[in-house]
Amino acid sequence: MKTRILLTVGDFNGIGPEIILKTLSNSAVLKKYDLTVVSPVSVLEFYAKRLSKKIFADKFNVIPVGYEKIKIQPGKVSEEAGFIAGVAVIKAIELCMYGDYDAIVTAPISKEALRKGGFNYDGHTEMLSYLVRTKNVCMIMVSDFIKTALATTHPPIKKVPASISRTLLQNRLRICYDSLKYDFKISLPKIGILSMNPHAGDGGMIGTEEINLINPVIKALNKKRSKNVFFGTYAADAYFASGLYKKFDLTFAMYHDQGLIPFKMISGINGINYTAGLSFVRTSPGHGTAFDIAGKNKANEKSLLAAIKWADRIYRNRGS
Amino acid sequence: MKTRILLTVGDFNGIGPEIILKTLSNSAVLKKYDLTVVSPVSVLEFYAKRLSKKIFADKFNVIPVGYEKIKIQPGKVSEEAGFIAGVAVIKAIELCMYGDYDAIVTAPISKEALRKGGFNYDGHTEMLSYLVRTKNVCMIMVSDFIKTALATTHPPIKKVPASISRTLLQNRLRICYDSLKYDFKISLPKIGILSMNPHAGDGGMIGTEEINLINPVIKALNKKRSKNVFFGTYAADAYFASGLYKKFDLTFAMYHDQGLIPFKMISGINGINYTAGLSFVRTSPGHGTAFDIAGKNKANEKSLLAAIKWADRIYRNRGS
Repeated sequence: MKTRILLTVGDFNGIGPEIILKTLSNSAVLKKYDLTVVSPVSVLEFYAKRLSKKIFADKFNVIPVGYEKIKIQPGKVSEEAGFIAGVAVIKAIELCMYGDYDAIVTAPISKEALRKGGFNYDGHTEMLSYLVRTKNVCMIMVSDFIKTALATTHPPIKKVPASISRTLLQNRLRICYDSLKYDFKISLPKIGILSMNPHAGDGGMIGTEEINLINPVIKALNKKRSKNVFFGTYAADAYFASGLYKKFDLTFAMYHDQGLIPFKMISGINGINYTAGLSFVRTSPGHGTAFDIAGKNKANEKSLLAAIKWADRIYRNRGS
Repeated sequence: MKTRILLTVGDFNGIGPEIILKTLSNSAVLKKYDLTVVSPVSVLEFYAKRLSKKIFADKFNVIPVGYEKIKIQPGKVSEEAGFIAGVAVIKAIELCMYGDYDAIVTAPISKEALRKGGFNYDGHTEMLSYLVRTKNVCMIMVSDFIKTALATTHPPIKKVPASISRTLLQNRLRICYDSLKYDFKISLPKIGILSMNPHAGDGGMIGTEEINLINPVIKALNKKRSKNVFFGTYAADAYFASGLYKKFDLTFAMYHDQGLIPFKMISGINGINYTAGLSFVRTSPGHGTAFDIAGKNKANEKSLLAAIKWADRIYRNRGS
């Protein structure tokens, strides 16, 4: 049986509809996965015309959301696009919660448009976390070469240290461990944990978060499992430059740039996001709305394809 | 005429003496540069014996510092090693200030040992800055593939935002510009500047340092030069993953890991440090004391060789 995957349209003024249509015109992909798009039909028609792609309505399903009289303006931040991006995600969650679908792959949204459209979330991960009523989710970036999770996702740098508590670290690390075990089928996962400060804090001379917070959490979690799963803390520059990251199944970074700079350098355009900790599977491409090239037939659907591939793989891993 | 380069011993319990001796046993290097080691003779003798290398005293000069009755303990942090590391640097600065030498290449020191030895500096850069009585220095990391400078070097993450003022940014960016022009002979330098916060602050939604501080400095500096030299701010993850950094002669990062993770990933072991803003030239290898492999004949002298090569190149560029 094919994995039943929902593709949410994302911000329809971004590249979401274009990469969805490009994916849907790939017959090998349609053969392999059971794909359903959650989108206003008029949006798909608009971009199909732009791309000169004929839509074969019998090859995939569309679940319409929002309304049909829409002002589509490629490249623009609009309240309508934010509203429809949001309702598509809500619809997809509902369909997965009832068990009719196995996974959601979300096309990119704009936080700004989302807010204008009435949804006050920082992103997909926060939206999913709120709507399924659990704080215990963790964004894991995945490629064939590295997996990276973050202690904090998008706070400004000055709020990073205060955002990381003992409870948060424990929860996120536990979710990562479970995800490696059950979603990625790694029987004895090893997780490498980066330090918050340069040079791993240099014995307390450069910040004290390593000594007072991160190292004790690592020690306690390992003790609980009576085996070593969590390693660190490591100075991030040497960790990546020496290739040490290859010895671990997952790298746990403290903040956005520390994790994302190396992840994207190592993964190129094949990186995707995975939300660990949910009852259904949710992935997304690693890129954003790319408003600057929207509607210009310049967008590359590779990352969306990778997101579909991983959603399928994780769903199957869970079942087996 | 050969460039007259001083090699300071660094922490004699680290790999400094070993990589210096390995360099000095390379006849091509001795032929090309006029090298003088600033070190206690007994330290060189101790490690020469360990490495089974014969010292040819006529092939290079030694300027002895400290005292000769020393307890050498490879891998240990010691007060004696910190003291002698410090006096070697002071001696080298003095010799360059009087014009007898052209450049200093410093072997790595341990901040902890340095403090125990009575010197209260955070590192070489801070020591040089204090001893030559100028705050206008800037550490630039250099390799054949990328040059990276930092707004802040080693504060803990929580102190990074408050450490960056308008004056600091202006001064450091001006030093970088001058260095590219006169030390690296780039007639129209272009500098790419990273944002402090993720997604370049996302229009003020993720922190305000871009809008209130960094962007206005960029604008003012460009206006003063009536041409565009300073570009940004750029979201760091996309900047490196897309290869955008290759379009600039120098990348200016806001803090340690943001600059060092990609620099080391791109440069491998060939990266070196250069202190811009001094009247003489000062470089150092990109690595630290490596206490874990000290005295084991495992250290690689490549980065020290690269530091010597760049010191020579910068000195010649300045003269021409």
